[in-house]
Amino acid sequence: MSADPSPAPTAAPAAGEIGLVEARDFHSRQPFAFESGQTLPGFTLRYETYGELSPTRDNTILICHALSGDHHCAGQHAGDRKPGWWNNLIGPGKAVDTRRFFVVCANVLGGCVGSTGPSSVNPETGQPYGVAFPFVTIRDMVRSQKLLLDHLGVASLAAAIGGSMGGMQVLQWGIEYPLFTKRMLAMATTARESAQAIAFNEVGRQAIMQDPAWNRGDYPREGGPRVGLAIARMMAHITYLSDASMDRKFGRRKKDTADRTGNSFDVQFEVESYLRHQGQSFINRFDANSYLYITRALDQFDLAAAYGSLEQAFAPVLGETLVLGFTSDWLFPPEQNRAVALALLRAGKRASYAELDTDLGHDSFLLESPELYDLVRGFLERSEKRVSDFSI
Amino acid sequence: MSADPSPAPTAAPAAGEIGLVEARDFHSRQPFAFESGQTLPGFTLRYETYGELSPTRDNTILICHALSGDHHCAGQHAGDRKPGWWNNLIGPGKAVDTRRFFVVCANVLGGCVGSTGPSSVNPETGQPYGVAFPFVTIRDMVRSQKLLLDHLGVASLAAAIGGSMGGMQVLQWGIEYPLFTKRMLAMATTARESAQAIAFNEVGRQAIMQDPAWNRGDYPREGGPRVGLAIARMMAHITYLSDASMDRKFGRRKKDTADRTGNSFDVQFEVESYLRHQGQSFINRFDANSYLYITRALDQFDLAAAYGSLEQAFAPVLGETLVLGFTSDWLFPPEQNRAVALALLRAGKRASYAELDTDLGHDSFLLESPELYDLVRGFLERSEKRVSDFSI
Repeated sequence: MSADPSPAPTAAPAAGEIGLVEARDFHSRQPFAFESGQTLPGFTLRYETYGELSPTRDNTILICHALSGDHHCAGQHAGDRKPGWWNNLIGPGKAVDTRRFFVVCANVLGGCVGSTGPSSVNPETGQPYGVAFPFVTIRDMVRSQKLLLDHLGVASLAAAIGGSMGGMQVLQWGIEYPLFTKRMLAMATTARESAQAIAFNEVGRQAIMQDPAWNRGDYPREGGPRVGLAIARMMAHITYLSDASMDRKFGRRKKDTADRTGNSFDVQFEVESYLRHQGQSFINRFDANSYLYITRALDQFDLAAAYGSLEQAFAPVLGETLVLGFTSDWLFPPEQNRAVALALLRAGKRASYAELDTDLGHDSFLLESPELYDLVRGFLERSEKRVSDFSI
Repeated sequence: MSADPSPAPTAAPAAGEIGLVEARDFHSRQPFAFESGQTLPGFTLRYETYGELSPTRDNTILICHALSGDHHCAGQHAGDRKPGWWNNLIGPGKAVDTRRFFVVCANVLGGCVGSTGPSSVNPETGQPYGVAFPFVTIRDMVRSQKLLLDHLGVASLAAAIGGSMGGMQVLQWGIEYPLFTKRMLAMATTARESAQAIAFNEVGRQAIMQDPAWNRGDYPREGGPRVGLAIARMMAHITYLSDASMDRKFGRRKKDTADRTGNSFDVQFEVESYLRHQGQSFINRFDANSYLYITRALDQFDLAAAYGSLEQAFAPVLGETLVLGFTSDWLFPPEQNRAVALALLRAGKRASYAELDTDLGHDSFLLESPELYDLVRGFLERSEKRVSDFSI
């Protein structure tokens, strides 16, 4: 591994805001064995940190991102209009308080925003790996993140926090590194990808792989199956919202430019325009092969199958868990979140489940919600003494 | 209009079954003006009938099909393994009893199973219409069906029955031909296509239109955007099922042929195999341009917008309505079905709503359910005297 020479940028942030941040790269130089048995000679994780590691090195919060997320979860990149994707949750004085916690977030292994993935150059060929990249699992993502945290000198996690695929990583953290992981906060997630969720992933993959430009995964960096990836994203985006929120946000409103007779297959409704925009902006920031790999990692996630039962999966867990479900989430519905907490309780672990009444669908975990902030804050502050009972 | 020379086939059906049936074509030779203002010099509807028209010509039940359905709703085509798509509901002694009712079902205008649609040859060019075909609405479908029923000598409808898009036609029948339509039985339907449903339709259309083989709608009969149409169908098929039914039917079971490590983008899970099969079989029976036209007809359906309010839309209705919703239908959820019945009641009409507790999703209306059969039978048998009060 190599240390990162680039220092964090300094700037005068707005009150309560992190201000300017920059990503860094962690290069692991030791061979990495994937769960599949395949190996890489090393890998890179692109990551960001906010706040300071405490002298006791036990104030770290790891943020785990979802399918289309990345390491830039808070603060501002120079020149960007928007802050990181979870900036409403993370910052000085916010629910994840960077005055107190050292927050780390890394783009996942297999991703395409700086971390090693199928779009990275295979040193053996000088070409992108494409589908020669090893298959990635949620556990592989977690194990690679552990090497990053070791490199940063982190002694233990005050918490791992994530929604959706991030929540899967959080659960895997508690299982894989029980002494290290003091708290798990998993939102809008599941212990097993359902048939319906696999089905949506498969349609997205087919849209990509049936696009002639996919070319069995072999395409130039700026090319590739842009049409297929946009279709996959448009469809997936519907599953992140809810019927009610789409009705409120768009309803049946028509675009000003729409043919008022409806006699056109061009954009008629605002919701069509919105979806097309989602598809188009996605293809400029995401790699189609990464989409295949990461959706496959989601599909393969099934803790009960991997460990014999959900209770056996959670048997090693030492940390305390809070699972949050959202009433309008139909991709990873409340029942699936509740089932995680119940299995932890049956396994004799400290776990709670809370359900937030939102109509924003799966993406509810990303949205501004004082109720959510209070639950996160309370979970991070409570019972520190008891959690530290098993500290090494 | 021309009479149909082909007589119904005769065969010895199994007890309680209709037996062999054959489709016929109704050719309307008078100009047809679409709601869009476009016209055709005439059109063809392919249809089937079961049972006999009574001497009083008032025992007809019109079956209205859904997006991917057709005129073959009951009985058996010579050589086919499967009977018509609603054969469990329709037949001698069944809920829609062909010993008593004359049942008619026609492929919709704009369709691709014998009725005039975008894949029909434009007499002016000798080529398929493609996207030069007039835009079709639910009301256009209904108005064309009325010409067929006039041709068949039907004096009034004992009932119009349909699910999903068929239910929209049923509601439109009650509005458009109030004296003619004695009963409306609408299932798993809505009075307005929601933003979420429009969104799914739009993704399907984009999958088709972005397929290079679509070629702006100009493709040979056996070619066309087969990849895009298969993607559209795979996605739509998920919306016809439910999370619970997919979990029960497929769960996370893997195909025997699957790579047990999951290290492949080929089929791993049974649900993937099922969806691919759905996509592949659809492209052999459905025209991509018809898919565009019919989904646009669904999107445009909004009775409240068309008539000022839902109550105003239903003001002309004279018949009695039963609306059936299904608890697990998330495409046209129970609330949207209930809203139809409530608006009818507010408009002073005879209407009921019943909700069936199923976990089979939107397609519940097609499945074997004695509870459903009893409701249909009861609705068709009850209050004939009162309904006939307004008979002309």
